Amino acid sequence: MKTSIATVSLSGDLVEKLDAISKADFDAIEIFEQDFIGSSLSPADTRQLVADYGLEIALFQPFRDFEGLPAGKLRDRAFSRAKYKFELMQELGTDLILICSSTHAEALGGIDRAADDFAALGEIAKSFDVRVGFEALAWGRYISDHRDAWEVVRRASHDHIGLILDSYHTLIRHIDTHSICSIPSDKIFFVQLADAPAIDMDYLYLSRHFRNMPGEGDLPVGRFMDAVYQTGYSGTISLEIFNDQFRRTKSELVAKDGYRSLLYLVDSIAARKADHNMPSLPQPVQISDVGYIEFAVEAETLPMMVKTFGQLGFAVMGRHKSKHVIWLQQGQVNLLLNADANSHASETGFTTAMMVSEIGLNVEDAQAALERAVGLGAIDQGSQQASETDILPRIEGIGSSLIAFTDSKMNIWQRDFEAEASSSQAEGGDTPDIVTRIDHIAQTMRYDEMLSWSLFYTAIFDMQKSPLVDVIDPDGVIKSQILQTPDTNVQFTLNGSDALHTRATSFVTENPGATVQHIAFATDDAVLAATALLARHIDILPQTENYYADLQARFGLTDTFLAKLQARNIMYDEDDAGAFLQFYYQPEKSGMFFEFVERQNGYGGFGAANAPYRLAAQRRQSSQT
Amino acid sequence: MKTSIATVSLSGDLVEKLDAISKADFDAIEIFEQDFIGSSLSPADTRQLVADYGLEIALFQPFRDFEGLPAGKLRDRAFSRAKYKFELMQELGTDLILICSSTHAEALGGIDRAADDFAALGEIAKSFDVRVGFEALAWGRYISDHRDAWEVVRRASHDHIGLILDSYHTLIRHIDTHSICSIPSDKIFFVQLADAPAIDMDYLYLSRHFRNMPGEGDLPVGRFMDAVYQTGYSGTISLEIFNDQFRRTKSELVAKDGYRSLLYLVDSIAARKADHNMPSLPQPVQISDVGYIEFAVEAETLPMMVKTFGQLGFAVMGRHKSKHVIWLQQGQVNLLLNADANSHASETGFTTAMMVSEIGLNVEDAQAALERAVGLGAIDQGSQQASETDILPRIEGIGSSLIAFTDSKMNIWQRDFEAEASSSQAEGGDTPDIVTRIDHIAQTMRYDEMLSWSLFYTAIFDMQKSPLVDVIDPDGVIKSQILQTPDTNVQFTLNGSDALHTRATSFVTENPGATVQHIAFATDDAVLAATALLARHIDILPQTENYYADLQARFGLTDTFLAKLQARNIMYDEDDAGAFLQFYYQPEKSGMFFEFVERQNGYGGFGAANAPYRLAAQRRQSSQT
Repeated sequence: MKTSIATVSLSGDLVEKLDAISKADFDAIEIFEQDFIGSSLSPADTRQLVADYGLEIALFQPFRDFEGLPAGKLRDRAFSRAKYKFELMQELGTDLILICSSTHAEALGGIDRAADDFAALGEIAKSFDVRVGFEALAWGRYISDHRDAWEVVRRASHDHIGLILDSYHTLIRHIDTHSICSIPSDKIFFVQLADAPAIDMDYLYLSRHFRNMPGEGDLPVGRFMDAVYQTGYSGTISLEIFNDQFRRTKSELVAKDGYRSLLYLVDSIAARKADHNMPSLPQPVQISDVGYIEFAVEAETLPMMVKTFGQLGFAVMGRHKSKHVIWLQQGQVNLLLNADANSHASETGFTTAMMVSEIGLNVEDAQAALERAVGLGAIDQGSQQASETDILPRIEGIGSSLIAFTDSKMNIWQRDFEAEASSSQAEGGDTPDIVTRIDHIAQTMRYDEMLSWSLFYTAIFDMQKSPLVDVIDPDGVIKSQILQTPDTNVQFTLNGSDALHTRATSFVTENPGATVQHIAFATDDAVLAATALLARHIDILPQTENYYADLQARFGLTDTFLAKLQARNIMYDEDDAGAFLQFYYQPEKSGMFFEFVERQNGYGGFGAANAPYRLAAQRRQSSQT
Repeated sequence: MKTSIATVSLSGDLVEKLDAISKADFDAIEIFEQDFIGSSLSPADTRQLVADYGLEIALFQPFRDFEGLPAGKLRDRAFSRAKYKFELMQELGTDLILICSSTHAEALGGIDRAADDFAALGEIAKSFDVRVGFEALAWGRYISDHRDAWEVVRRASHDHIGLILDSYHTLIRHIDTHSICSIPSDKIFFVQLADAPAIDMDYLYLSRHFRNMPGEGDLPVGRFMDAVYQTGYSGTISLEIFNDQFRRTKSELVAKDGYRSLLYLVDSIAARKADHNMPSLPQPVQISDVGYIEFAVEAETLPMMVKTFGQLGFAVMGRHKSKHVIWLQQGQVNLLLNADANSHASETGFTTAMMVSEIGLNVEDAQAALERAVGLGAIDQGSQQASETDILPRIEGIGSSLIAFTDSKMNIWQRDFEAEASSSQAEGGDTPDIVTRIDHIAQTMRYDEMLSWSLFYTAIFDMQKSPLVDVIDPDGVIKSQILQTPDTNVQFTLNGSDALHTRATSFVTENPGATVQHIAFATDDAVLAATALLARHIDILPQTENYYADLQARFGLTDTFLAKLQARNIMYDEDDAGAFLQFYYQPEKSGMFFEFVERQNGYGGFGAANAPYRLAAQRRQSSQT
């Protein structure tokens, strides 16, 4: 199969679009008529330019309101208009045009009437040596289902008339994709792909504003594509996405995401085994757990950081053999403090006192993980970072952070680190661990980038995404999405906001390159953990009396338990399974903060009901300092 | 009636919200429970603070998932939770709580079951001396219609149980508002008002993200309010708006808009004549035409401006008697070039070579117009501008522009201007006018401000608004809305974009305070006008060959006519009524541009189909200079 993208999916002028599409490795484009008309390039120059970019024009689109017009001026003009466009297609060097089902107020219904129109058009198309593909718009006046469009094409019975399928139009109407399997592959002239979020909304409005890349939305595009493969179709698959967000995003990013989404889609489909034109990738990466989190630290603040993490119960375990990096550990959590002048963070620049520069993920096979990631367009950073004792496969993550892959074969702790003689600098000495593991890592980005990074994680890793939820910040809405491995051992939350002054937006603005806004550590006993931290003069984010009064009203907690929570500023939630305790600590002058969570009896959420109060409390704290 | 707004409608913390609500002149608030819980103020302190702001708490809201729960733990906890909240209400000093219809997964149906629950709750409420209002959510599990909620209340038959009506929930379900008229007014405990755009969308999603102020959306809120008045209800009317945009906008602006929307709504309703608590306003202002457009000009660029407008056919008619202002005229169009050092623009600062500082509107009675505008919250600027020869009622418009009202009694041209001896400096001498009148004025603002200014125009003036349409800029989507008088003699287009690099956004960013991005002049003959302007070396914005090829394909124009258009870079469109010719000119180094339009046979549009090509052409032109 060849890969293609419609120029309408991208921002910029035609030249900028071609440049982005070419760089993203697509084979072809659908040329959106308005992009061509708005361009000052002649048809011949356009044809040459497309060729110069190593692309071809697989489709000219759209041609609207053709079929079903009453005989006379309107119908005549539609045919005349088609001839002009066929001529233009010859000059552009493309042989296929998309006609979408009519929405014309004066169009008449009737499968045979439409078939007759297409049969007549087929003859004209033949004389121009071009082909016509008919597509059912979900909001077409009479034809709004690909099964009806196919019946029109079947009855038109002309070699130059075929069907165009579009996953959006089929799936948004919940049309059974099995109905695709009985269409002969030679009558499927073209396949367009788009996804969309699961919002119950007028089809046209949703389509015009919210379409997104396969895998970015909630439609079963894989099921659609599987049916297409089953027909034996081996033509072009093409992205046709209308999205307000993409229209304002740099075309290169959108094109790259689009290509990733196509590879990911095709890779996920069993029926595609026969398709030797598409690359084969290693299996989705299984992450067993977070191996480590590395912080970029300036050399002079390193002792302070060791002290801060010491207060949180982390002990110094070792020092890197060749770099200025300290290894801290508590429970299963490993933290690295990287003060190396040659670190990625130092090179790309970082401006905040405490910034996560790298997340190490434990996987089955680090090399295979790298191969899949790079195969899906992730940027390989391994070579740039390699030193004798630091050979880790690495890719670029969000912001200027990196993701590293480690596996058991490497044993990086022995390989790269000199064990510390005095094994512990953590406060508390022999007391039990406060922190046992990492519960989740919260990454904040520009709202416009959320779809992109969500696709990044779900395409490369074996991870599921939750629907976007709204978190109400006093200064606007923050969108939040959870990504987790099937066993929930590794969980990321992605947060973004297009409001100017939310905590999420401020974090991105004030900490360029940073992405991890907070780390949630799991603890076995939140009350004990908070008690220990308070004893070490750690300031837990204060909650209001009103909050605890409401807890009592909602959950009927005992006075004793409520008092324990309130004395320690621990927040509380319940779901059908169990209970959840969480509290927060933000080191002074850090853009980052830490959360401590206790999950009882398999509580599965993240305390969403508490989020607005946490944000209000943080806003109060910030305004006081 | 008392006016109120729910705190959830605004951004900020509770204190910021109260401050904004008080400044906007509301009488009361609905306290949104989360706002209170997230606040560090005790109930008693909150009560005092609200009183200090001259407000009262008219409603505590929301209480969810009360009715229909199966007997046992769930139902007991709901009642227990209610008692806690009744106690809290006593401390807060409010006697009314909103219970919205249940969406609980385990709730059971049955009007009588719900009525029994409320009857039981009524007894408890009575013991706390509070009242309970029941509201049907449009997405309630069993109760989703105010008629059913009313039946529950009727059967509960308890003095402390009443109904709460919300225009959104009733109107989004298209429930006949006549059904409200048969509800006894003493059983209507509270009335909430919200509007919403006409997008066919899941009720909950639309409600949570897109509600807006009455008059800002497309729901018949006036019809709803009329029915409420008919019942004899004289309690509180309150805005409860959830809107992502409002949540990130300064609370003062949103509160002010909200208050304006309430006044406008009440003013528009015939049945309200009995309501002596609400202010009475003069009739909506009828604008007969645009009296003049004033540009703020720096003294040294004044001669250049006179020359530029001279090329466009404008003659110098006079000079202001007391200010450094030149009056230009052509056809019915009057332009003022204001180089006065004390002008509003000079005082507020302007940074662009050509900026509209004031729009003069001809109205029947300028003083009445001012009275209505100020009554609806517009800011009176008249006094600050008054000089002996310049007594005009003025209000603040968009950006740092002003709107002035003139009427025939004033005769400002004779009163304020000294006629120019040599009557014409326009090029072309005795040739007919190029420009006859102003077709429309295009104002650009931040996207977040569009609803606000749309309400401003429709509330103060007798103007209708069109639905928002998308204009595709190569760098993102621009939203555009038309506001016009019933006779279409006065037309504004409002444009805004939340994409960073669109032409609309760039205009706002690069020209602080400016709002008029272009003025469209009407011409009787666009071909003649363009010919005349080209002869005077005016550069008309070039269109592409591809554009004219497409025109031919679409409209089947004659070769001669097409050649005429193309030679002059005139764009073309048709609607059911007639044809439209339009072309563009942007003076060098100006953020503004001018459009010349010819409407044939009552063409009613604005050439929307041409807008993307015009934007693409302007982008090309900008990148070349």
